[in-house]
Amino acid sequence: MTAAAVVREFWRLMASNDFDSVAAVLAPGFVLEWPQSRERIRGAERFARMNREYVAHGPWRFNVLRVVGAESEAVSEVEVTDGTQNAKAISFFTVQEGRIIRLVEYWPEPSPAPANRAPLTEPLQ
Amino acid sequence: MTAAAVVREFWRLMASNDFDSVAAVLAPGFVLEWPQSRERIRGAERFARMNREYVAHGPWRFNVLRVVGAESEAVSEVEVTDGTQNAKAISFFTVQEGRIIRLVEYWPEPSPAPANRAPLTEPLQ
Repeated sequence: MTAAAVVREFWRLMASNDFDSVAAVLAPGFVLEWPQSRERIRGAERFARMNREYVAHGPWRFNVLRVVGAESEAVSEVEVTDGTQNAKAISFFTVQEGRIIRLVEYWPEPSPAPANRAPLTEPLQ
Repeated sequence: MTAAAVVREFWRLMASNDFDSVAAVLAPGFVLEWPQSRERIRGAERFARMNREYVAHGPWRFNVLRVVGAESEAVSEVEVTDGTQNAKAISFFTVQEGRIIRLVEYWPEPSPAPANRAPLTEPLQ
């Protein structure tokens, strides 16, 4: 399986909201890092528990906008919603022997457009 | 040139701080989108002007952490500093005939670690 195929399978399993099932594509030494909050989480079990605790307000749905994949790395751009909250996840995956060994994840937030560049830009619909 | 090679050349030219030079790797229909602020900027000339206006506080330096490239797409994770401000840019490039036709860029900001997941995580150094 290519790195991109492993990442698509990761999101397919996440969409089941059965977060234990995601372990099928995680390597034994799986590590997830969030650079924005400077946190690291280790192992499929903690990853599943963290996701279960987040899902209190109804099932998560994921819209995979794209996956860009190279040999052992792939990046996804994904919209995430629980019906109330909407967010976007940018995820850098490192794959070894068909399983994800490392995931570096960003959750960029909306921000105001700087007024001084308005003459150069147009609004996105 | 692969998409990844075009992206590395983009960052090499950006590092010169001669932003007009970046036009060498931009397609005539170049478009940059910032989903966080819902802005779009069109064309190499406006892109150069926008960058020049941002560089008031001294030259920009870029540290390319990685480039993940597929056939016509590549993603970079880059640290940006002007000596005072530090930021991180996640950039999705679409390449056609050796030039960048579309760039979708995220600037994720630091955010506090949620206290309720502290039992599951460790701090990143």
